Amino acid sequence: MATLTVPDQLPPVAEDSDRLHSAFQGWGTDEGAIISILAHRNAKQRSLIRQTYAETHGEDLLKALDKELSSDFERAVLLWTLHPAERDALLANEAIRKLTPKHFVILEIACTRTPRDLFLVKEEYHARFKRSIEEDVAYHTTGDFRKLLVPLVTAYRYDGPEVNAALATSEAKILHEKISEKAYNDEELIRIISTRSKAQLNATFNHYNDQFGTAINKDLKTDPDNDYLKFLRAAVKCLTWPEKYFEKVLRLAIKGLGTDEEALTRVVVTRAEVDMKRIVEEYYRINSVPLDQAIKGDTSGDYERMLLALIGNDNA
Amino acid sequence: MATLTVPDQLPPVAEDSDRLHSAFQGWGTDEGAIISILAHRNAKQRSLIRQTYAETHGEDLLKALDKELSSDFERAVLLWTLHPAERDALLANEAIRKLTPKHFVILEIACTRTPRDLFLVKEEYHARFKRSIEEDVAYHTTGDFRKLLVPLVTAYRYDGPEVNAALATSEAKILHEKISEKAYNDEELIRIISTRSKAQLNATFNHYNDQFGTAINKDLKTDPDNDYLKFLRAAVKCLTWPEKYFEKVLRLAIKGLGTDEEALTRVVVTRAEVDMKRIVEEYYRINSVPLDQAIKGDTSGDYERMLLALIGNDNA
Repeated sequence: MATLTVPDQLPPVAEDSDRLHSAFQGWGTDEGAIISILAHRNAKQRSLIRQTYAETHGEDLLKALDKELSSDFERAVLLWTLHPAERDALLANEAIRKLTPKHFVILEIACTRTPRDLFLVKEEYHARFKRSIEEDVAYHTTGDFRKLLVPLVTAYRYDGPEVNAALATSEAKILHEKISEKAYNDEELIRIISTRSKAQLNATFNHYNDQFGTAINKDLKTDPDNDYLKFLRAAVKCLTWPEKYFEKVLRLAIKGLGTDEEALTRVVVTRAEVDMKRIVEEYYRINSVPLDQAIKGDTSGDYERMLLALIGNDNA
Repeated sequence: MATLTVPDQLPPVAEDSDRLHSAFQGWGTDEGAIISILAHRNAKQRSLIRQTYAETHGEDLLKALDKELSSDFERAVLLWTLHPAERDALLANEAIRKLTPKHFVILEIACTRTPRDLFLVKEEYHARFKRSIEEDVAYHTTGDFRKLLVPLVTAYRYDGPEVNAALATSEAKILHEKISEKAYNDEELIRIISTRSKAQLNATFNHYNDQFGTAINKDLKTDPDNDYLKFLRAAVKCLTWPEKYFEKVLRLAIKGLGTDEEALTRVVVTRAEVDMKRIVEEYYRINSVPLDQAIKGDTSGDYERMLLALIGNDNA
């Protein structure tokens, strides 16, 4: 379900590395070459290119890209070139260090990555920042956001397909009770959402719907201005229907007068290798406009070309 | 600082495996042979023996041991033979499933293992129980114990030596404030204890002592009957002076009329390969009786011989 396309016949890594090096030489930069190579290599291949580039040209490819490129295109290329775990560690750290922490970015990383991938992010975070991600999240957040976000980011959920139906029934009931009492920050509610496996939560939310006649996220919509409720709904979505969550992030990033390039870039670079195809479908289903059209309408130049290449549309 | 002794010249794994198989043949069981082999092989070697035994004799070594041995000796040999992460996953699960969960066993595993080793325990827990350890701990505990224990067991702490002195000062102050207010289950206090690296916590507790003139654990001793306070003190000890914590577990297991074999076995098998030497020294410092003497006084037979072999004293 990735949109990333990799050529059937790959050139040798050394050739990719040399072509990138050539793209940086002379007066201008050959952005087209950068896109045609990097936007069509998977994480492992990019990492090999980076390694070979450093060995051959004595410089980190990211540094070279940083010198040559600028603005939104630069950010998209740099983030994309990073290894996914490294990229997530950087995105999370950037989100935490803001004066108003970007809770949603951290939530997104905590809940849409596989437990194993989230663990790799934690390792990268240790290595790069000499602290743990949960330590920073716990330190920089407060109140209900902290109460929910810290266990979400800390969890190492079970990732198997097994579902305990009796537990799904009983925990759907607990969730319904707490939500009826508007006890949205209740310990039991947070325990269930932050510790159960995604398969188990999916079963629990289905039982919720069946037993009580409304989807859990509808019941969490009582107060549209409550930011914590928005956050809780996003957690439910990220854990069980990530494509719906990402569709909405894209929609909000694109709609209106300006464009939220940060969000647009983040979703495209983090999902192109994962489930972007589903997100593209969901986007079309909700907006009746293909995502590539929407991106063309809101972006331009190399940045546009890079995003379109990553969502599998190179004929921009 | 391990007490485990491994011969300089190791016999081939196949020979160990065959000698164990012979020890199970005929009328009796050769317990001496079992001790002389297993109690003198490290985790990797035991794991190779287990693998070879299964391949050669078509049975899991643990199953064979289970059939041949009994009572305290059996439990000590079985727990010892397991890979440390597997053993901890089993011990944690056993502790959680009790009618009254054994919070201290889980706390001990969460706080005295390295972050990396704790992660391996979590992986083993997933594989064996098809659930996450934090999911089970959160489900089976309540109140303040849960509030502290879940983040402790879930954390993936940073494990480096870096210390932020300014942070140690400011967080020592927070801890002192909360403890002065008797807010022992305060969110900030739990945040600090459950997320900071051990090196950082060590600095923070030292600052606490220097700034306020009392050790943090003395200030946590206001009410000797409060079980949660005992638990909090144990967490502080496990995180920064594990040998003190384990010395006390051993002392309580040995002293008085009966012996708590469960605790005695657990400490010896889980620490023999780690820091048992320091625990032995600490035990002597506090009790003026060598630990091997104390064990001889309280145990007998093969169980006694097994424990003594693991703490480096085979001339029982």
